[in-house]
Parts: sequence; structure tokens; C-alpha cells
Amino acid sequence: MLRPDDFIAWRGYMPELRQNMATGEWVVIATERARRPEEFASKREPRASSPHRDDCPFCPGNERFTPGPVFSLPTTGPWEVRAVTNKFAALVPDIPLRRSCDGHFRKATGYGFHQVIIETPRHDLPLALQEPAGFDRVVEAWHRSYALLAAAPGVEFVIPFKNHGEAAGTSLEHPHSQIIGLPIFPGHIRGRMEEAIRFYDAEGECVFCAMVRMERQAGARIVAENDRFTAFIPYAAFSPFHLWIFPRVHQSTFRELDDGGKAGLSTILRTVLRKLHAGLGDPDYNLMVRSGPADAPRLKYFHWYISIVPRLGKAAGFELGSGMYINTALPEESAAYLRAVTA
Amino acid sequence: MLRPDDFIAWRGYMPELRQNMATGEWVVIATERARRPEEFASKREPRASSPHRDDCPFCPGNERFTPGPVFSLPTTGPWEVRAVTNKFAALVPDIPLRRSCDGHFRKATGYGFHQVIIETPRHDLPLALQEPAGFDRVVEAWHRSYALLAAAPGVEFVIPFKNHGEAAGTSLEHPHSQIIGLPIFPGHIRGRMEEAIRFYDAEGECVFCAMVRMERQAGARIVAENDRFTAFIPYAAFSPFHLWIFPRVHQSTFRELDDGGKAGLSTILRTVLRKLHAGLGDPDYNLMVRSGPADAPRLKYFHWYISIVPRLGKAAGFELGSGMYINTALPEESAAYLRAVTA
Repeated sequence: MLRPDDFIAWRGYMPELRQNMATGEWVVIATERARRPEEFASKREPRASSPHRDDCPFCPGNERFTPGPVFSLPTTGPWEVRAVTNKFAALVPDIPLRRSCDGHFRKATGYGFHQVIIETPRHDLPLALQEPAGFDRVVEAWHRSYALLAAAPGVEFVIPFKNHGEAAGTSLEHPHSQIIGLPIFPGHIRGRMEEAIRFYDAEGECVFCAMVRMERQAGARIVAENDRFTAFIPYAAFSPFHLWIFPRVHQSTFRELDDGGKAGLSTILRTVLRKLHAGLGDPDYNLMVRSGPADAPRLKYFHWYISIVPRLGKAAGFELGSGMYINTALPEESAAYLRAVTA
Repeated sequence: MLRPDDFIAWRGYMPELRQNMATGEWVVIATERARRPEEFASKREPRASSPHRDDCPFCPGNERFTPGPVFSLPTTGPWEVRAVTNKFAALVPDIPLRRSCDGHFRKATGYGFHQVIIETPRHDLPLALQEPAGFDRVVEAWHRSYALLAAAPGVEFVIPFKNHGEAAGTSLEHPHSQIIGLPIFPGHIRGRMEEAIRFYDAEGECVFCAMVRMERQAGARIVAENDRFTAFIPYAAFSPFHLWIFPRVHQSTFRELDDGGKAGLSTILRTVLRKLHAGLGDPDYNLMVRSGPADAPRLKYFHWYISIVPRLGKAAGFELGSGMYINTALPEESAAYLRAVTA
């Protein structure tokens, strides 16, 4: 609750608008409302849990309650990671894809894929705290699921994602990620591709390659780096501690990730998630793999990446209405804070 | 928490994809996950409050704590509605608008307007429960602020909005709405205008006029109507009870609203908000006025409207990553439910 004392005087200050060079979207960096990085740390109690719950469908011993599995890792012995069909799937593979139109009311049958990747047998082990081998397995599972779904007939777009914590929209405590294969191409992604084509046409370079190069030159917003990946808080980050992780070599889809790339991604992802966990007190977050079209050849103008959005604020009327965001953290300050966190 | 029994069997069902004819966006209508309309009703305790708080900057007697006012209504006597400058403004009018670019890192000074409209002197009177005269004043204040900001130099886009309740992102309990005047045009809105131009080019009609006509013909998703406005849950609503209120006559910006229109909007808005309040137990919601460009002449292809988004679910990784939504309510069922609520 704000108090009247907070409202005493209208004092001049200098907010800033920044434009994301890849998406063309403007964001308000609200320096007046800006909080110091450590103020974003979660104030809630640590998540209480136990390593195994009889009533959890993702815990070992309850495998019969999940449809599938699609695969498990390792391929022999007790599982460490399981990919299963989502029991509450948004889209299902066992119906034909049919489009129809009544007037302008266009619809299609809900053909598609929706899988869950159970990241560990341990009910209470968040991804951030897994050992390096655990990250290797999760990255391998994402990649394997992505390849399966991208190759499925009629699938146009595949999106692996993870919801961690209640504010990030998860209903199940057991650490897991999800992957959806869509039979249509999201308009939002098409818009981004059009922006990318426009840049390529003007500059002769992938806009994401250019952005990574320029962020590395600037340095101030880099959070972590290895020989394969760069993690940074983008110049026009739309929310506090919004993070992007980019493969340094040009790749247009997640499928193009090779073994060396998987190792590099596993390492940087562990570093970044540990920094968030330690620096912000295990915040709720969403993680998304944003890739090019499922069946795309290597596109010169598009670049896959991972986006991590800690849920530290709420999209409200302005954001819903304009599609623009007000960021109350300075990207440079947030990045410096995370760089300094040893994790 | 889901229980293992919820996961017993994978049973076939038929989810649906629907495309919004105006935006071109697809939405998943997840019939498998669908809940009955009454299940969306808020389960929390009624909001406890008092009609006046000494520590609230929006309560009468504390006017010195808010910068302004820009205006108040009525123009003489004690105020019923006050428009003031937002003390924590995202954008400020007292700096010049300057764009600059360092490499491709483009920015602009945070020139713009951010006002608050205090909807009532009563700390504990939510908009939904105001008398008709109260709605008249709030609509008049929105319109007056909109006209002021739209006419300000350098303003390209104006968005009035309201955040009701914590899940909708509000930090102050006292009923209020906000209005922001932006010096740039949001890419998200530009995308919608391009879709609208495409439809106009193909069909020779405003896509929103066509949609209202078709929704009225279909009837199943209409929630309320008067001679000036139609309120409905769109065919491809992106979240449960997502509502659109359209002027029936073609108008491209909120500024074009005339006195008869204000009266019609006041009436239908009161009906719709009372139905939501009674039918869903005073849900948190965002309300946005979505209008054409600030300085636009009458555009034949664009139509202003009000969007109301009850915050009954959470956008998670899939939504953030794809820009698509999974709606767990059937628009037809939600609309029938609200139609039946007497309020």
C-alpha cells in the first residue's frame, strides 16, 4: 500500500523508451519506478516439499497414471527423465486436421501434440538445483521431443516451455517442462519473422546475430557466456530480469543444435538458472525455446533462442491493451547484479 | 493439486482451434480442460474496506498528495471524479521528445502522459456497484482525458485502461482508472491495423463492423445490447469471459463518441460489470479502451472498442512463447451464463 507521503511532490525525472531491434517493439524503462535489483528477490517462504509423494502422478511408482511414455532417459535402467503425453492435452494427435469456415468464423480441429517432460524422479528438486548431468538430460529430452514433434505430419510450429511456480502458471509441483506442436503458425511469430526479414533485407545479416554481436561489444547486459552461448538481458527487456540465451553460431531452429551445442546449452542454462535461484530467491519463472518453423530449412534471417521471464510483476491493462511493457528495472543494473551472483 | 486418479486414462476428445477474424490470431479452445462457467467464480473473501482511509492519496481530504488535478467532475462543488497526473508516471510531459540511435540500440526520451482517473470519493465503492450517474461521470472523464491527450503534441496513441484487483496488477485499492498517451505507435496495434486493412481490401467492409454483425446474427455469444452498443464474448476469445464491447455505428477512435454514445456506453458498461461482479464474485479484471491512432481522421477500416479481461487464469510459457492462448471456457457457455445473471 502506498502512503500519502509517497505522493508529496511531482519531481522531474527522465524515463526512457527503448526499441528492441529484433522485434521492433518499444518498451518503457520506468526509471522513476525503478527498484534496486535485490528488491526483486522473492520474499516468500522456501517451497516446502518432500522427495516423493504418493499422490503425485510424476513420481516414481505412479507411472501408470501418465499416458505414454514417449521415451525415457537413460534408455535402460530406472528413468531419470520421462517424456509422456499430457493427460490434459490442449491438442491431440489422434484426430485428423480439418479446417472449416462458417462465414468468417474460421476453425480447425484441435490436432497437435502436447507432451510433458518430467525432469527428475525427485519431487522436490527444482531444475536450477540439478547437477550438470541432470541439465544434460533435460536439454537432450527437449531436443529429442522437439525433433519428434517437428517431424510429425501437419505440425507447423513447436514450442518447448517450462512454467516454474504458481505465478508462472503451473499446477503441478513436480519439476517438469512441456512441449506443444501446433498445426498452425502463430501470428505473433510470423510478425517477428517479418521484422527479421526486413532487417536482413536492409543489412544483409541475421538481426539476432547482429544483436548478439552488439550486446557482446556493449558488455553491460551480458549475464553469462561460454564458447557456444551468450546469455544477456536485452537492451529493451520487457520485464525485470527478462533473459535471452542465444547460440553464438547462426542456427534458425532448435533442431539444428548438435552435441557440442547441447553441452554448451546445458552449461549456460545451469549457470543462469542458479544465478536466478540464488540472486532472486527461487523466483517463479517461465522459460521458452523460441525457434523457427518446424519444417524450415536453415533460414538465414531467423535465429532460435531461449527466453526466460521471471514473474516478478504483472501484465496489467496497459500491457494487455497496447502490447507494450513498462519495465521497472534497468537492464544494465539487473545484468550486473546477476553477473556478481556466484552460483 | 491434481491427484493420480485424475490421470487414469487417456480418453479421446475433440479440442478446437478458432481464428479471430479481426486479429488473425488462433486460440485453442481446450474442451478437455473446460470448466463450467460457475466454476470460474472467485472463491476469495469479499474485499474488506472502509468508505474513507486517511492514508489513501485518492480519498477526499488528501488531494494535496496527488499532482494536479487535470480536471474534476462536476466542475463546481465537491468532486465526484478527479483526473490527476500519475505520481509514478511511466512517461512525463515536461521533457522534449528526442529519438536517438547507438548502432541499432534505438531509444527515445520518455515523453508522454500518464494520468489517473479517481472514479469516486468513496474508497470502497467499486466501479461495478456505482449508480448510473457514476458510470456517466467515469465515461465522461475517460472521454475528456482521451481528447486532451490525443490532441497533445507528439502523442501518437492513447490508451485508457483500468486494473481492478491484485491479479489485475493494481497497487491501490481506491477505485481508479488510468490513461497513457504514447509518443510512439505500438507494434502490436500496427499489426492489428494491417490485418484490418487486409480485410477491408478484400471485403470492402470494416472487419469489426462485419464481426459485430455476424456475432449479432449468431446470437450465442451476445452478453448485452442496447441501441448503441453490443457486448459479446468473441468467437475466438483468448481467455475465459474475455468480453468485447463495440459501438454499433462505425467509429475509428474513442474521440468520436458523442453524447448519445456516452449514454449508451455508460449503460452497457454498468450492465456488463454488474453481471461479472454478480456472476463471478467480483473478479479481478483489466479493462482497456482500444482505439485507432490519436490523430487519425475517421478511418474506414478500424473500429474502437472496449476489451474486458477477467483475470481468471495465468498466461504461462506457452502463451508468452507463442503469443497464442489456451482458453479453458467455451465462449458460448460463458455468454449464456452471463446473459442469465440478473444484475
